Amino acid sequence: MNKLWKKGYELDSEVEEYTVGEDYLLDQALLPYDIQASIAHAEMLGECGYLTKEEAESIVAELKKLESLEIKKEDEDSHTAIENYLVEKLGETGKKIHTARSRNDQCLVAMRMYFKNNLQKLETEIKTLIEELKKKKDVPMPGYTHTRKAMPSSSGLLFSAYMDMLEDDLLLLQSVKKILDKNPLGSAAGYGVPLKINKESTTKKLGFAKTQENPIHCANSRGKYELLVANVLTSIMLDLNKMASDLILFSTSEFGFFKLPKELCTGSSIMPQKMNPDPLELIRANYHVVSGYEATIKGICSNLISGYHRDFQLTKGPAIKSMSITLGSLKVMGKIFAGLELDEEKMKEAMTKELYATEEAYKLVEKGTPFRDAYKEVSKKFM
Amino acid sequence: MNKLWKKGYELDSEVEEYTVGEDYLLDQALLPYDIQASIAHAEMLGECGYLTKEEAESIVAELKKLESLEIKKEDEDSHTAIENYLVEKLGETGKKIHTARSRNDQCLVAMRMYFKNNLQKLETEIKTLIEELKKKKDVPMPGYTHTRKAMPSSSGLLFSAYMDMLEDDLLLLQSVKKILDKNPLGSAAGYGVPLKINKESTTKKLGFAKTQENPIHCANSRGKYELLVANVLTSIMLDLNKMASDLILFSTSEFGFFKLPKELCTGSSIMPQKMNPDPLELIRANYHVVSGYEATIKGICSNLISGYHRDFQLTKGPAIKSMSITLGSLKVMGKIFAGLELDEEKMKEAMTKELYATEEAYKLVEKGTPFRDAYKEVSKKFM
Amino acid sequence: MNKLWKKGYELDSEVEEYTVGEDYLLDQALLPYDIQASIAHAEMLGECGYLTKEEAESIVAELKKLESLEIKKEDEDSHTAIENYLVEKLGETGKKIHTARSRNDQCLVAMRMYFKNNLQKLETEIKTLIEELKKKKDVPMPGYTHTRKAMPSSSGLLFSAYMDMLEDDLLLLQSVKKILDKNPLGSAAGYGVPLKINKESTTKKLGFAKTQENPIHCANSRGKYELLVANVLTSIMLDLNKMASDLILFSTSEFGFFKLPKELCTGSSIMPQKMNPDPLELIRANYHVVSGYEATIKGICSNLISGYHRDFQLTKGPAIKSMSITLGSLKVMGKIFAGLELDEEKMKEAMTKELYATEEAYKLVEKGTPFRDAYKEVSKKFM
Amino acid sequence: MNKLWKKGYELDSEVEEYTVGEDYLLDQALLPYDIQASIAHAEMLGECGYLTKEEAESIVAELKKLESLEIKKEDEDSHTAIENYLVEKLGETGKKIHTARSRNDQCLVAMRMYFKNNLQKLETEIKTLIEELKKKKDVPMPGYTHTRKAMPSSSGLLFSAYMDMLEDDLLLLQSVKKILDKNPLGSAAGYGVPLKINKESTTKKLGFAKTQENPIHCANSRGKYELLVANVLTSIMLDLNKMASDLILFSTSEFGFFKLPKELCTGSSIMPQKMNPDPLELIRANYHVVSGYEATIKGICSNLISGYHRDFQLTKGPAIKSMSITLGSLKVMGKIFAGLELDEEKMKEAMTKELYATEEAYKLVEKGTPFRDAYKEVSKKFM
Repeated sequence: MNKLWKKGYELDSEVEEYTVGEDYLLDQALLPYDIQASIAHAEMLGECGYLTKEEAESIVAELKKLESLEIKKEDEDSHTAIENYLVEKLGETGKKIHTARSRNDQCLVAMRMYFKNNLQKLETEIKTLIEELKKKKDVPMPGYTHTRKAMPSSSGLLFSAYMDMLEDDLLLLQSVKKILDKNPLGSAAGYGVPLKINKESTTKKLGFAKTQENPIHCANSRGKYELLVANVLTSIMLDLNKMASDLILFSTSEFGFFKLPKELCTGSSIMPQKMNPDPLELIRANYHVVSGYEATIKGICSNLISGYHRDFQLTKGPAIKSMSITLGSLKVMGKIFAGLELDEEKMKEAMTKELYATEEAYKLVEKGTPFRDAYKEVSKKFM
Repeated sequence: MNKLWKKGYELDSEVEEYTVGEDYLLDQALLPYDIQASIAHAEMLGECGYLTKEEAESIVAELKKLESLEIKKEDEDSHTAIENYLVEKLGETGKKIHTARSRNDQCLVAMRMYFKNNLQKLETEIKTLIEELKKKKDVPMPGYTHTRKAMPSSSGLLFSAYMDMLEDDLLLLQSVKKILDKNPLGSAAGYGVPLKINKESTTKKLGFAKTQENPIHCANSRGKYELLVANVLTSIMLDLNKMASDLILFSTSEFGFFKLPKELCTGSSIMPQKMNPDPLELIRANYHVVSGYEATIKGICSNLISGYHRDFQLTKGPAIKSMSITLGSLKVMGKIFAGLELDEEKMKEAMTKELYATEEAYKLVEKGTPFRDAYKEVSKKFM
Repeated sequence: MNKLWKKGYELDSEVEEYTVGEDYLLDQALLPYDIQASIAHAEMLGECGYLTKEEAESIVAELKKLESLEIKKEDEDSHTAIENYLVEKLGETGKKIHTARSRNDQCLVAMRMYFKNNLQKLETEIKTLIEELKKKKDVPMPGYTHTRKAMPSSSGLLFSAYMDMLEDDLLLLQSVKKILDKNPLGSAAGYGVPLKINKESTTKKLGFAKTQENPIHCANSRGKYELLVANVLTSIMLDLNKMASDLILFSTSEFGFFKLPKELCTGSSIMPQKMNPDPLELIRANYHVVSGYEATIKGICSNLISGYHRDFQLTKGPAIKSMSITLGSLKVMGKIFAGLELDEEKMKEAMTKELYATEEAYKLVEKGTPFRDAYKEVSKKFM
Repeated sequence: MNKLWKKGYELDSEVEEYTVGEDYLLDQALLPYDIQASIAHAEMLGECGYLTKEEAESIVAELKKLESLEIKKEDEDSHTAIENYLVEKLGETGKKIHTARSRNDQCLVAMRMYFKNNLQKLETEIKTLIEELKKKKDVPMPGYTHTRKAMPSSSGLLFSAYMDMLEDDLLLLQSVKKILDKNPLGSAAGYGVPLKINKESTTKKLGFAKTQENPIHCANSRGKYELLVANVLTSIMLDLNKMASDLILFSTSEFGFFKLPKELCTGSSIMPQKMNPDPLELIRANYHVVSGYEATIKGICSNLISGYHRDFQLTKGPAIKSMSITLGSLKVMGKIFAGLELDEEKMKEAMTKELYATEEAYKLVEKGTPFRDAYKEVSKKFM
């Protein structure tokens, strides 16, 4: 099979397998963006005279037909699959698509578009979850500190805290989306190309806010921008992890404030009575999966000089997988809240007197006792 | 010694040591903010009638004298030290300072102010480093991919990439600063207080952009906001790690492009000839220290239900230490660039012909050869 | 499709997809062990009278035919696939296989066998790599500290250090293998079964060193034992990361001591001259992938009470994937060393005088100068 | 102040502060080992004729007096402090102590001895905790899976699972101790010394099991061996994290099985009624602190060529601090179990009927119903 860097000798096949890894599978998610960017690139090459009008048009026409290409292991990646496809369809003309670009900027631009698009999806899912939370009822329940009853609270206060947490995530998400909204196409292998291309043209066609001018900056943003996105994902997953922790505990028979819809519980293979909160446990655990992927990205990018290293290839899996996990987790959490029921009876029963100890101290304060003395007075009742 | 939660029995002393940990040392950095917030709190209590005008004034007056208090191990933390100090100075009146607050919101507000202030310092340091980079000369040098010569580049292109990377960090920093710019005072232990306090008043006095209304949101932002700051710090340190990696390699005798000022190199205890780039190696390694602290924060905050847990105390050290490391690393990097010299001779010598192979292929392209064929043609020369 | 925990209602299909995740794919690697353990379990049930002789024999006979079963998404996991298969083949008798076991101990025992077997494979690969290293030539070359020339060294000294590092890994591997060599079958869901089963019998049949008696210990070892294996894998990968770092640097044109076989290098899509050490870069990066998976396992297992949680399911992927990456990395590294050539000319040229500065100081020491004075004397020559 | 690598120019003072970091504080823990190793080294130099008998004796005599030296910031580290001390006391003779060694092997040997000694202490603490666990009463209580009641269990079963977990840790600890039990002294800066020293002599004097012969192996074990120790510490802390998680939940008013001794609980600064399990929460959180330090070590050691780098200095803090945290956590956990009381009444009440559902299914199995059918039958009662 043809590779973009082939020079007439064969790579050891076991080693080839090791180097390709799961890239050909991951690139399936990037393909639509790779095609879109290739179209913009071909058009720009036509505008600048590196392709004739006819060449540019025929390449664009073929690329527009290409949405469902299956990337094979032998293709190595979507970039090669696209070039091989064009050569097959257009012969000599196809061999011109890679003029003035490298797989590096091709991959960078596809990832960038993938991120922009998926951050947008995340934003929508977060807002959907917030809407779901808004619908829930406000019922008094104990507030906990140190996993112990502390002061009076309510389901409304709790769920509205979740909304505020998600609003924080939205702010971070929007900032990161803005940071990445730069077109890296034209940076080639990280040192530009000695040709007179027009980067502004692809920036405009692809809807980027601006051109990422410095090609070394483009190369060095590989991994770094994956990390920024990972920060957003970890931040969202941490909030879902907290919600899951709350719901798991508050739906035990010992606490009993919430009831999970049975359609979202699974059973045990041995214990007939069990109704387990598996989706919540998996959301909780998936925080650690996403956080582990973030650790991978942080590790891979470190202690490397400027410019591309093959190491960066392995940031692609963590980035794409954690995006997909986070989207899935938000969806499942939305369903859980949609089905969640409050056990008002149990919540009421749980409003026991120790929750009001602080209030009692404040009553003494209002009568003139200094707070610290009021505190000591009331505390005696609970020793 | 008096503790804010004392009720007339003694804690096991070894356990007490374990629980206090290094908090009393860390709180030294928070003290100025704790005092400032206590002043605003006392004034507000006065305005709302929970302290008489005289009480509020005397507390404020004592607090204003308090900048240099040393927090002792027996004090446990700055919050206790402040209350103990006020009781010592003002007797009964001092015991009223803790009305309508908990150590939780007291700690939250002090950390929040510490972060705002130190993010501002970071911003200044980043800008200083950018200024330093702008002063450096632009000299041609090889550009590397895969740690191998790739295409022609220059010191100017490299250093300006650093500036762009730092500009990205600034954007992230400013977003995070904005997310945290909310006053948590009044959230008490995470469930508010049953008193008619005026949160807007302290928000205004302390210069926050707004009040963080939901008290559970306040409690749950402990650790979470530390993580957001850690994201910024890791992001900056990753860029410094890359700069350090470049400078270490490019200043070896084998590469030889850059010369480090000897005032910033240390020697070996055994090898008389050595001039080692220790500060750069420590910057490189400190990325991992900061990243490890971020991992700690991410771990501590996970799998916990809403509301305060003592676990959060242990996010304070990682947050304060990584802030201090990042500030120090930026400073040292600034000095290194200030002293860095370019060895123009060596840089010129390194501009060998393989760097121009892509250019050669493009010359064939301009004569009409499809890029992929031109590539293959030129590649034969290098086999 | 039938699930082991089905009770007559349907799970939300999107949620089901989220909960199954990639388990059905991962379990393909566990299937042979699950079958083997199921055979031992059925035989034991026969011995203890929970199955008739005929039932036990027919189950065993069917299981022995079962090596190539494909686990489908609807099966959820290998455990369900096996029971469904037996019910299909044997009707009522098939429904008895799950007597006295849970998916928990079934999964535990399969993972345990998978680990034992793959740790054995790792041991073999490590030894093969050591043999490859032994074959390499011993040629003088500079020794480096701080990435700068330090003292005279040799390729033989370097490669033999690699062997010693791998020997350390072998010791750790063997200890961990020993710790896990315990049969968890019979622990059921983590609290045993109220039946008179014979755990020693399956322990013997499956070749375990002993029975893991306490069922809560069995349940709590889920994740924990994955972590122990991850420690071994990270340890090996860290050594490969160091070897890769050495080989990448020492094979640059600037250093030039080593030459990588071109069959193990890949090219650039844009730069015709490039021969890049991609497999080495991927080995280097895969350390971080394995280390990230270890972080995931460490996170998932934390802050959870004793007993099974669905969270543990997500430790399976990290464990199986990092095992496979480590095995692959060792293999590729073996091939790289097999093909590695030394450039003796370049190595000799690099033995420049500063490498002998310490020796020079020691000559003064032998003439009676105190070491610190000798050091200072010699150091003057290099300022 | 004199530094071992001083050559007559001054280091920038801010940079010096950055490079020294907290080393001078950490080295306080290493000093006794550094002295012991220096004694062995001096004796060996005497035996080999690099010091006269008198010189060796006077150095040894001075070192034996040295247990309480305070290392100052200007000393940089314990190695320099020792040499400076000897020069002050013995003049010219003192300058000879560093013959045939580098700070690298000096630090390696001190860390190695520190680890051996502290792993021994850990072993003792683990055994003490096991003894404490053995004393606790065995009372029936529910067993949990998915944080929900599953099957009957008992405090005895739970605590004995803890013992088994700790026994696993002991095995790992002993293996790691064995791996590190090698004398690195004589490896100097990682490439040995061109002198006829006798490494076996110091190996014997210092009680190491063997000599670590290859000097590059010695240098490369910096960080790597810290990681092995970190693996042990994380493993222990993970078990303590689980115990803490159990105890925190089972001592809530909602569960109520266990009562924590009030001497080990702390209160709230605002809520008079609170008795919080702070030491347990800190143990739980300290798992993440130790795990974060492990991440730091793993990061620092990566992507670096063979030989010493200053980066490794920053593995010292994480290693020493996590050792100290783990020792402290074991001690505190021992105290908690010593004081822990079982609320037998509450435990008994919690033994509700759903815990016996599996038993009920097995009764049907014993009457001939296939397990899966029995399961379905019983499960109907719980829908």
